[in-house]
Amino acid sequence: MSSGDLSRSENPIGVFDSGLGGLTVVRELQSAMPNEEIVYLGDTARVPYGTKSLQTIRRFSLEDAAFLLEFSPKMIVVACNSASAAAVTVLRERLPVEVVDVISPSAARAVAHAPGTIGVIGTEATVNSGAYQRAIHELDPSREVVAVACPLLVPIVEEGRDQTDPIVTHVLCDYLRDLQRIRPTVLILGCTHYPLLSGAIGKLMGPATPLINSGWAAAQEAVARLERGGLRSRRQERGTLRCFTTDNPQRFAAFAQRFGTARIDQVEYLGTDMLETRRLPEGSAP
Amino acid sequence: MSSGDLSRSENPIGVFDSGLGGLTVVRELQSAMPNEEIVYLGDTARVPYGTKSLQTIRRFSLEDAAFLLEFSPKMIVVACNSASAAAVTVLRERLPVEVVDVISPSAARAVAHAPGTIGVIGTEATVNSGAYQRAIHELDPSREVVAVACPLLVPIVEEGRDQTDPIVTHVLCDYLRDLQRIRPTVLILGCTHYPLLSGAIGKLMGPATPLINSGWAAAQEAVARLERGGLRSRRQERGTLRCFTTDNPQRFAAFAQRFGTARIDQVEYLGTDMLETRRLPEGSAP
Repeated sequence: MSSGDLSRSENPIGVFDSGLGGLTVVRELQSAMPNEEIVYLGDTARVPYGTKSLQTIRRFSLEDAAFLLEFSPKMIVVACNSASAAAVTVLRERLPVEVVDVISPSAARAVAHAPGTIGVIGTEATVNSGAYQRAIHELDPSREVVAVACPLLVPIVEEGRDQTDPIVTHVLCDYLRDLQRIRPTVLILGCTHYPLLSGAIGKLMGPATPLINSGWAAAQEAVARLERGGLRSRRQERGTLRCFTTDNPQRFAAFAQRFGTARIDQVEYLGTDMLETRRLPEGSAP
Repeated sequence: MSSGDLSRSENPIGVFDSGLGGLTVVRELQSAMPNEEIVYLGDTARVPYGTKSLQTIRRFSLEDAAFLLEFSPKMIVVACNSASAAAVTVLRERLPVEVVDVISPSAARAVAHAPGTIGVIGTEATVNSGAYQRAIHELDPSREVVAVACPLLVPIVEEGRDQTDPIVTHVLCDYLRDLQRIRPTVLILGCTHYPLLSGAIGKLMGPATPLINSGWAAAQEAVARLERGGLRSRRQERGTLRCFTTDNPQRFAAFAQRFGTARIDQVEYLGTDMLETRRLPEGSAP
């Protein structure tokens, strides 16, 4: 670890997502770095991003990030695959802090795992953007990638159905049919909701196809970058988790438990009208 | 028909919805009144409303209506059950024109149909709001109402699955199990997406339980109110349909066909940042 930037190491990590799914990424961040402060924005009033156009997702992502900048974060984690697919380039250009996305870390893990076809499942926006394919081909241009959009999995998880529910099995069988035949060397769970279905997905794909949780890969990347920059917190106690939501905070707190995060210290309401007024200054990159 | 208000009879009917579902209401309006001009706003950037809090839905609905007022509509149709459930009272208080919702007309049709239990299916927001129960009990306080939330049906329709898809059958069987046992005297399709599944729903419920399409009932109510106010158009030719969408207009136009509307003459983009700046003047009611 470098001697680091003492003035910034105790600043929070900013995390944003279209809604609640990003809390699975927070869980991985907390598990890897329990002493870090986290500020989370879940844009539950405009969720989902995954069925919307890249242009709209980009605008929402810039507003979300502009809000988080008010907390002087030492890093921003884009805890949403659709936002990572649509907006990571513009976020890296415009934000004055390091940006960790959920796509490139899992793409790197998948390429490193073994040769052979890489499978990806995600939302319509993520799959249609080709972002996973690009991230994988940057590392290995010859690698075959099979990406399948699974639009019903997010609403199924948000409805609270668990992995043993017959509807979950039927829907997964439908989406995974081609991937079961192809038998990829590894399958990337390219949506932050999918780790909640990893048991059922793993069972259908079989032990020969390990799953990569994109949130877990992003958390490992965040640790490595903070270490490299000497920006890990020296705090001894558990870091707090402060959440902002653009819809009902009570509902947010109730649903958050499903996503398995550690204790949430505070949930506050933030209207999307407040978000829409926030704009990143042009050319604010370092 | 009264002699009417000639200055306003040629004004358009304003229709808004959280997204594309309201186009099934437009189809019913066009079928009942082919010569009327219609301006439609689909808030596809913030769709769905049905999983969000009543407070957020109310704010979005007021913004949507404020936008439509710019076209001097002679009537506003709230073509979204979730928006009708959350916002119709405040819209009636604040708008200077007649407001037709999709809940009270179908509640009235259901009560008039026959004695016995009334079944309702809808989104989480619509069902949890108790709006159908209230509308029915205003007409018949002793009427039993069984309302079931069906959160997956909207994403299933938007994914483009048709009524013969096995997933559709599995999901419908799961949601309708109790209603099949109860055998209501009539079943209200309390979401504008559900008419696209009416064949499958009707098959599961059987011929003893007719279905009421809330959009069809709303269109009949709109005709009756315009007739009463002498506000029906005297135009001989087909009325145009001008659509605004807060997300991708190409996607809107492509998906619109699924919802079976007549020709859309124009689809224009309108950013939600433009909507958020619109506020209804306080006390603008007539």
